[in-house]
Amino acid sequence: MILLLGATGYVGQAFARELNRRHLDFRALSRRQVDYSRFETLLEFLRSNKPSFVLNAAGFAGRPNVDACETAQADTLQGNTLLPITIADACAATATPWGHVSSGCIYSGAHIVEGGRGRVERDLTRPGVRALIERSPAALRGFIEEDEPNFTFRRPPCSFYSGTKALAEEALQTHSNTFLWRLRMPFDEVDEPKNYVAKLLHYPRLYDNFNSLSHLGDFVRACLDLWERRAPFGTYNVTNPGFVSTRQVVALIQKTLKPARAFEYFASDEEFYRLAARAPRCNCVLDVSKLLATGVKLRPVDDAVTEALKNWRKERG
Amino acid sequence: MILLLGATGYVGQAFARELNRRHLDFRALSRRQVDYSRFETLLEFLRSNKPSFVLNAAGFAGRPNVDACETAQADTLQGNTLLPITIADACAATATPWGHVSSGCIYSGAHIVEGGRGRVERDLTRPGVRALIERSPAALRGFIEEDEPNFTFRRPPCSFYSGTKALAEEALQTHSNTFLWRLRMPFDEVDEPKNYVAKLLHYPRLYDNFNSLSHLGDFVRACLDLWERRAPFGTYNVTNPGFVSTRQVVALIQKTLKPARAFEYFASDEEFYRLAARAPRCNCVLDVSKLLATGVKLRPVDDAVTEALKNWRKERG
Repeated sequence: MILLLGATGYVGQAFARELNRRHLDFRALSRRQVDYSRFETLLEFLRSNKPSFVLNAAGFAGRPNVDACETAQADTLQGNTLLPITIADACAATATPWGHVSSGCIYSGAHIVEGGRGRVERDLTRPGVRALIERSPAALRGFIEEDEPNFTFRRPPCSFYSGTKALAEEALQTHSNTFLWRLRMPFDEVDEPKNYVAKLLHYPRLYDNFNSLSHLGDFVRACLDLWERRAPFGTYNVTNPGFVSTRQVVALIQKTLKPARAFEYFASDEEFYRLAARAPRCNCVLDVSKLLATGVKLRPVDDAVTEALKNWRKERG
Repeated sequence: MILLLGATGYVGQAFARELNRRHLDFRALSRRQVDYSRFETLLEFLRSNKPSFVLNAAGFAGRPNVDACETAQADTLQGNTLLPITIADACAATATPWGHVSSGCIYSGAHIVEGGRGRVERDLTRPGVRALIERSPAALRGFIEEDEPNFTFRRPPCSFYSGTKALAEEALQTHSNTFLWRLRMPFDEVDEPKNYVAKLLHYPRLYDNFNSLSHLGDFVRACLDLWERRAPFGTYNVTNPGFVSTRQVVALIQKTLKPARAFEYFASDEEFYRLAARAPRCNCVLDVSKLLATGVKLRPVDDAVTEALKNWRKERG
């Protein structure tokens, strides 16, 4: 039996759908049934029920957006750092393998290769940098798993959300039998508040940047594939290969959905943070070579976005 | 065998002295020998060595003072929240009883009883409140263990240090076989940087407030007494009964040590925070009835301060 924690969230629901599709025996535990945030309760559950694998899709991302984490610091730490540590400890004490939905939002920017020399660039929107990327996209290389996260409490500024996610990674890296799966700005074809493409469609004004994205269905399939193929435990960037700019996604939206609205952009970082955002926002590109090297398949990000828009709908069928 | 973690710190050293004095078999583990911040390492150690009790005196309080925790957020969280949870989990998985040095600095102020009605007062220096306390000290009642901490991430403002200590208490409260011992502004007769009386003696200017204090030797004796008497597990305020104002302690310093200096005070909260401090400072009074009801003895705070000053010396003998 596979134990699924956080089954009611955006990512947890996608895991439940995929587990059902694969006819895998799983149990979705809610904290109301069994308070798995209490170590002794979870330990007893694992000892009695002996799951073959534990999936943690629970977390605290803030509503309506990540700014809410700046004030709800205790809940943010509890959901994103303390809870994963509790699960990791209980799994370690019972030798239960498990996987945790981590986040790519612990990085800012990407590597930029220019004149044969590489460097980390935190802000991809700087005029010279943006022009270079638009001129030669190959100049941009995503962060690999071994790159030190640079949008964390140790490497400020960061959002409080990102700080707590990075701190969990730091703590969980010492645990064996553990997958850390880094998700970024999930989306699919259903118009829901957590869907990145839906956000672009509905936000009154947009912030143009370059990002990796994770198609939600592709993400959960890749995570389960890693486990089913018995890939080595450890950290994996799980985003669709490639990267997109906000404007590219908007162009696809306009072409396919033909919405009756104009899309406007903040003129600058300064304007964005003054008018729309409180916490520093993460924009970054991840490299997925490690994941692809295991044999797990993932579509390029433009294909995944194009397909989602082609099948765009209001509600999950 | 008793396992002592954090034996090199100000509080840990005091535990080691008292354990030696009692001729108790103990082992002081350093993270260099065995990295007990790694769950699996600690679990293996506990399984192999089967200590009868674990004492955690490790923590991150910031140097030279608590302001350092505002910037070293990852280390502060790691030392004060994540590490205790790791220890708690490993102790729970092996059914090992243990005690954690928590802090009273998760409260601000005290209860004030006026005209037969009680209320929580966060700032005891407000003119009317200060006058009332000086006129009738019995109007001030310390926080009991069941009072909700009011200087935490959930009840801001707080210092980052206090937020992390409170979050640890919240997480550890769900663990059985666990003592939470709340220390406050420790002091004794040795002129060291962490000694509260030494701070008053050496700071260029002082901040006048009302506080509970813990005599360091009394504190560790009371903690070990609770364990040796098999008092019920749970949370205990471990401060010397009563409370003192900064000016009262300074008066005792002047009377006993006769230092060749004048003591000046910040004119107001506003001046203190503008000139000397970054993080909000905790000033509070705790009630120790629960501890005393177990039969554990503790001297009144004025006796402990008077005695420390009488035996004042530069170095530990």
